[in-house]
Amino acid sequence: MDRPVAVDAMGGDLGCEVAVEGAIQAFNEFGIHSIIVGDEAQIKPILQNKFNYKGSEIVVHHADEVITMHDSPAQAVRKKPRSSIRLAYELVKEKKASAVVSPGNTGAVMATGLYVLGALPGILRPAIATLLPKVGDALPTVFLDAGANVECDAAHLVQFALMGNYYAQVALKKERPRIALLSNGSESSKGTDTIRSAAVVLGQLKELNFIGYVEGRDLPRDIADVVVCDGFVGNVVLKAMEGSVELVVDSMRNYVGDSVRGKVGLWLAKPLLKSLFRDKLDPSSYGGAPLLGLSDLAIICHGSSNGRAIKNAMRVAQDFVREKLLERIEQSLVSLEEGVSEDPIHDGVWARMGMRFEKKKRRDNV
Amino acid sequence: MDRPVAVDAMGGDLGCEVAVEGAIQAFNEFGIHSIIVGDEAQIKPILQNKFNYKGSEIVVHHADEVITMHDSPAQAVRKKPRSSIRLAYELVKEKKASAVVSPGNTGAVMATGLYVLGALPGILRPAIATLLPKVGDALPTVFLDAGANVECDAAHLVQFALMGNYYAQVALKKERPRIALLSNGSESSKGTDTIRSAAVVLGQLKELNFIGYVEGRDLPRDIADVVVCDGFVGNVVLKAMEGSVELVVDSMRNYVGDSVRGKVGLWLAKPLLKSLFRDKLDPSSYGGAPLLGLSDLAIICHGSSNGRAIKNAMRVAQDFVREKLLERIEQSLVSLEEGVSEDPIHDGVWARMGMRFEKKKRRDNV
Repeated sequence: MDRPVAVDAMGGDLGCEVAVEGAIQAFNEFGIHSIIVGDEAQIKPILQNKFNYKGSEIVVHHADEVITMHDSPAQAVRKKPRSSIRLAYELVKEKKASAVVSPGNTGAVMATGLYVLGALPGILRPAIATLLPKVGDALPTVFLDAGANVECDAAHLVQFALMGNYYAQVALKKERPRIALLSNGSESSKGTDTIRSAAVVLGQLKELNFIGYVEGRDLPRDIADVVVCDGFVGNVVLKAMEGSVELVVDSMRNYVGDSVRGKVGLWLAKPLLKSLFRDKLDPSSYGGAPLLGLSDLAIICHGSSNGRAIKNAMRVAQDFVREKLLERIEQSLVSLEEGVSEDPIHDGVWARMGMRFEKKKRRDNV
Repeated sequence: MDRPVAVDAMGGDLGCEVAVEGAIQAFNEFGIHSIIVGDEAQIKPILQNKFNYKGSEIVVHHADEVITMHDSPAQAVRKKPRSSIRLAYELVKEKKASAVVSPGNTGAVMATGLYVLGALPGILRPAIATLLPKVGDALPTVFLDAGANVECDAAHLVQFALMGNYYAQVALKKERPRIALLSNGSESSKGTDTIRSAAVVLGQLKELNFIGYVEGRDLPRDIADVVVCDGFVGNVVLKAMEGSVELVVDSMRNYVGDSVRGKVGLWLAKPLLKSLFRDKLDPSSYGGAPLLGLSDLAIICHGSSNGRAIKNAMRVAQDFVREKLLERIEQSLVSLEEGVSEDPIHDGVWARMGMRFEKKKRRDNV
């Protein structure tokens, strides 16, 4: 019997109704149980009256504080100990829930997760992994870090690649996903010092199918399954892609203004364009972005997630718990520990990762 | 009488015919004189037989070496002293031409320019400035660095903002262009340490209308006139935007496959979509990207530039020379030198820029 998923009902832009709707759909479609965390006085009437739910598979756990999009992550942890996101993580820590799903403030979801659950042993920093659609029928690209870590060193990038590898195995069902670093050209001379160091280490790890660098324009092409970058670049790239889709759509509208033929054409094509954006480019169809590297699983949804997005995130959370995604990542880090090479760059990056193992071991021995 | 523009005929993907075609069009439409630099045996027959040109406003300057897209920039400078791009810069140095236009290897155009002409006094590093289209009728965004400098410190970013400011004054005819740094959020707490330091200094420069940070999705919106980032981020962002346009177009094609209504609609709208990409999203309509910060002007065109793109780049080069763009940048740097504040971050960044002035002055006094 799976544990229920803890759903943060308070952090999203559209209020707590989307969480209730998602929980109802997740139970009806997949039999997933849930604990909705948030203001009981708001949530219970929606659950019981609006959705007419009387069962015991979906329960409400009261939280009387809310972290908004304007709260700083550090403040959220310190000043709001009874927030819905904090209590959702506490439920996971107490083994009452298997994973957290939240459409709230990304920084706060990360900071609170680290505070309550801590990182997986050996992991320097968790990262946000998102799925980017590709052209044609190809499976999407696992893209990380999508924004959790603004400044990263080579050891961070190597760990992101490892986490992305196991995520892609589970999410894309590919045994040896093609792993790449995002760079400013495909030649090995390209990239920053940090990226080149990470490439040296990744090239030596037999566990990974590392294929080198890809460029920005390769993201939607079927070249790599996992693309790794720091969280600053990840944030800027994702938002720029969003902006350029907006530009294309706007430009079409403007151009069409002048021509009867174009007007009729786009009017006819409009339902298709709408479904295109809904099904292929809408992140809600992928069910949110996992925060990889915490000692338990959290899924971050877009702030404007609807019920369908929350439902999909809950399904993804349950899949990943069943497939033991985090155990795979942890196991891979332990087995890597024995692979130190003679290469000085490798050793330097390695020392950054290995040190944490040492500390952890010492803690374990006490 | 304007000096002619030196056109590198050998570096582009489409051979030397596009340079000849661009030079012919630039003369016919704008009366611009030019020196086409490259293999005489290839260029003269095209000029005289194919285009039937017999005048003296377009001349050919022989160069018997070619820098390809595969040559490393450093090798290009050292090992090919008679390359077309090198000789084009030499013509500018000898005051026989006013500016260089090249569709060649970007790194080689930059490295050769620095070697032959050097940087503007006070400029730490030249940057590539490109124009990005915006939604609606808004003027484009000046975006730099588009890829010349992979690792940048705060002083570089401040100088890019200054150069972008004068470029926007000339190219967009805006007296006080809105200047922004590209970041992972609009709050001042966002960004890397480098970006935050640059923001402190830019906020103190009265010469600039600095508006703070913009996000990736703001690039095509009418929020800033000049957006500054390092060349790694610039390269990745531009290529990712290109990739996402490709994704949208491909997705439309795929969706349409299933529906008669959609098929008819997109077939009707197709000429409009084509003209959209040609006129609004095609960089050739903007005439290439200036390499700002050399002591004379160079315009880098896309490797696959056609004659129209070369022509537009030549027009832009002539405009910038007439409008004294580089003199404005140089003058602004000299006047800034007196503005040192009490702020330690400002002073640190300043020292990086000021040091160069000191050296330059000492050289001048000798």
